[in-house]
Amino acid sequence: MSQTKAYAAKSATTPLVPFSFERRDLRDNDVNIDILYCGVCHSDIHVAESDWGPSEYPVVPGHEIVGRVTDIGNKVSKYKVGDLVGVGCMVDSCQTCSSCKQDLEQYCENSFVGTYGFKDLIDGTLTYGGYSDHIVVREEFVLSIPEALDASKAAPLLCAGVTTYSPLRHYGVKAGDKVGILGMGGLGHMGVKFAKALGAEVTIFTRSESKIAEAKKQGADHVIVSTDDAQMQAAAMNFDFLLDTIPVQHDLNPYLNCLKVDGMHILVGLIEPMEPAVHAANLVLKRRILTGSLIGGIAETQEVLDFCAEHNIECDAEMINIQDINDSYKRMKKGDVKYRFIIDMKSLKNS
Amino acid sequence: MSQTKAYAAKSATTPLVPFSFERRDLRDNDVNIDILYCGVCHSDIHVAESDWGPSEYPVVPGHEIVGRVTDIGNKVSKYKVGDLVGVGCMVDSCQTCSSCKQDLEQYCENSFVGTYGFKDLIDGTLTYGGYSDHIVVREEFVLSIPEALDASKAAPLLCAGVTTYSPLRHYGVKAGDKVGILGMGGLGHMGVKFAKALGAEVTIFTRSESKIAEAKKQGADHVIVSTDDAQMQAAAMNFDFLLDTIPVQHDLNPYLNCLKVDGMHILVGLIEPMEPAVHAANLVLKRRILTGSLIGGIAETQEVLDFCAEHNIECDAEMINIQDINDSYKRMKKGDVKYRFIIDMKSLKNS
Repeated sequence: MSQTKAYAAKSATTPLVPFSFERRDLRDNDVNIDILYCGVCHSDIHVAESDWGPSEYPVVPGHEIVGRVTDIGNKVSKYKVGDLVGVGCMVDSCQTCSSCKQDLEQYCENSFVGTYGFKDLIDGTLTYGGYSDHIVVREEFVLSIPEALDASKAAPLLCAGVTTYSPLRHYGVKAGDKVGILGMGGLGHMGVKFAKALGAEVTIFTRSESKIAEAKKQGADHVIVSTDDAQMQAAAMNFDFLLDTIPVQHDLNPYLNCLKVDGMHILVGLIEPMEPAVHAANLVLKRRILTGSLIGGIAETQEVLDFCAEHNIECDAEMINIQDINDSYKRMKKGDVKYRFIIDMKSLKNS
Repeated sequence: MSQTKAYAAKSATTPLVPFSFERRDLRDNDVNIDILYCGVCHSDIHVAESDWGPSEYPVVPGHEIVGRVTDIGNKVSKYKVGDLVGVGCMVDSCQTCSSCKQDLEQYCENSFVGTYGFKDLIDGTLTYGGYSDHIVVREEFVLSIPEALDASKAAPLLCAGVTTYSPLRHYGVKAGDKVGILGMGGLGHMGVKFAKALGAEVTIFTRSESKIAEAKKQGADHVIVSTDDAQMQAAAMNFDFLLDTIPVQHDLNPYLNCLKVDGMHILVGLIEPMEPAVHAANLVLKRRILTGSLIGGIAETQEVLDFCAEHNIECDAEMINIQDINDSYKRMKKGDVKYRFIIDMKSLKNS
């Protein structure tokens, strides 16, 4: 067992505070990783604050982890000490179900094990995430970070990156397709970069005129102000894909109307009931498709890291110290971040 | 102009009554068809009674038409006098938009012309449907009825048939797939036949235990009583496709839960807001797809007629006289029909 420094939420209503616990000893297929950087995902706030039902405390958030291998189990073959590696949203799955066998561990029929807030499949202990100095993960769930990537900006690729990359690839976005991105946060800004890299003509939908300049800066070919009915009407029947990163309830109907026949609206931000109600006519009358997608499998997560190295894609991020985490949560709730906070985990030494 | 005997609704609240009007003279590409049989679709009631917004009266319903060619325009090349032909839900479309060019006239971007209740593209007159002794239709929208089909049962293939056949084919239902059929009416019972013919393992979902025997008789391999929570839970993650023919609002969530990862729920009956609200989590967490489909294109309608001739598929129907139409509407509203009424149009001579 190894002593671990971390930050944890001890209840839904108290700020994160320094916390220490013991990581398990290495199993044969485990990798020990000293954490260099950890991205801050909005999910971290949701789980810390029990927004998705009561969390088991303490919660040590963090599932966008980049670090160096410092030790390996006896049977580890993929990694060696010194390797730059990453850990995303999952640290285990059954490996035997139909989904796992198709490299779709995120849809594991026996439930994947999340990087924090889940139970380890072997010893039943609560998983603790990347707001900590090191982590122990079975090698099958460890990613290789290409040296061509800036390690200090790679962490968000492990969640925000793969979450937007996966559906664009799976559903076959290709050169010339018209792709709309809904929402301009951590997910949305990555979606723009991937859609552009895949050759699509990209439009950002934003609620506010004040964000037009920023949307263009993000690389969007066009911007539509979604609160302007005339602009939305003019966009009718215009899009092959809409990647919807909006994490709160919103009316999908005006967006569906922007899709061509056979166009597809992909939810990656919403996990609530779709209210206001979606009109069936918006699907039926133009054979449109509404679907959703959850992060990505391990092989696909490696693919997105390699894709980013090849296409010089990185997340726009602001580096913080772990001591700033509670203030950062407040800023994220206000949407005051471009576009991801990344914790420099060196700062944990000062706690 | 040719005098036409028909039955029409003259208002939303009065029964259908005998009505006569003049069909246009043949244009160069028109076919004149003496109507032998006309299927009765639930849409006929909706339009006759202005359920989908105010209809323009008189409404002469009927878009499942089988008859014989009695005259052709100068430039007609596909049909000759004496041919057994059909007319479905559409009698025209722009023929120039992207959808029309892909044989998807039902999604015509300039709106197709419905067989009744729409405006003719050339002279602007109201279209009158198949509850009439003859109809004049441009040859591109006339179907050839294979002689191997029983002409007296072929009419419903032109709407109920193609509406269920089209999405099963388009989305690639194949041998071994697990397909659920929701609803056991005119559409549902055709869906069962097509899914079986495509080699799928077919389950009918019905609200009532009393319909289990009938569902088996329809050819279903399995029956699930959808009001039985235990049966629905046992079906979780089990289906590749659900073909949803239910024409009224219903909770989609328990059905979505029955789909595998990447499974698809296809709406062909509902055109209202989806209430109760669909949970985005039911899509996102298993990458499930919700879509809809509208009738089918002209080429696909010909395909379904040929497919039925090849596979000996016909609609289960009850023959009525036109004088019975108002009683038949009452019975349809109670679900008292197995599974389609077809009007023997000879009866119109007695009106």
